[in-house]
Amino acid sequence: MKNYVDDLNKAFESRVRLGLMSLLMVHESVDFTLVKEHMSLTDGNLASHIQTLEKLGYVEVLKQFIGKKPHTSYRATDTGRQAFKDHLDALEKLIKQTPF
Amino acid sequence: MKNYVDDLNKAFESRVRLGLMSLLMVHESVDFTLVKEHMSLTDGNLASHIQTLEKLGYVEVLKQFIGKKPHTSYRATDTGRQAFKDHLDALEKLIKQTPF
Repeated sequence: MKNYVDDLNKAFESRVRLGLMSLLMVHESVDFTLVKEHMSLTDGNLASHIQTLEKLGYVEVLKQFIGKKPHTSYRATDTGRQAFKDHLDALEKLIKQTPF
Repeated sequence: MKNYVDDLNKAFESRVRLGLMSLLMVHESVDFTLVKEHMSLTDGNLASHIQTLEKLGYVEVLKQFIGKKPHTSYRATDTGRQAFKDHLDALEKLIKQTPF
């Protein structure tokens, strides 16, 4: 039995970051408020997880003004997409070797 | 897009506990030293993760003597197997809704 644990990415151990990244894979870019509400997170909690992903180069933060209102959104970088894909591949292998 | 994050089990966020439980799903019982080596863990690290799973009622610790030598092994409980299955189901759904 192969140990796929080492192929899992520590950055995606957190359920929140896993969900966040999965959201960013589906949408080109996502709005701060939308993510916050979709995942039932507080401002601080979301910001801290985003910062972790940003430091790793997995996520880009886009700050714009829509009219006079500041607007923050996020997108996954190519590096982030590849890292997440590798993580899901490892998870999938781990799931497949687990009998029920 | 459904948010499957809430269906994920916090107990299995840790890569080590995920790998540990996956090992216990495949084998009826596993030996402490075997797990430690298979997963490249220290004694303390493995013991602490096992304790977390034991407290949740997911894993049982079996202590025996083989000759005069103490022997520790683990097995997954039915509760643990069900909880892990539910976790993998949620992961699988999350993976399936993620396009590449």
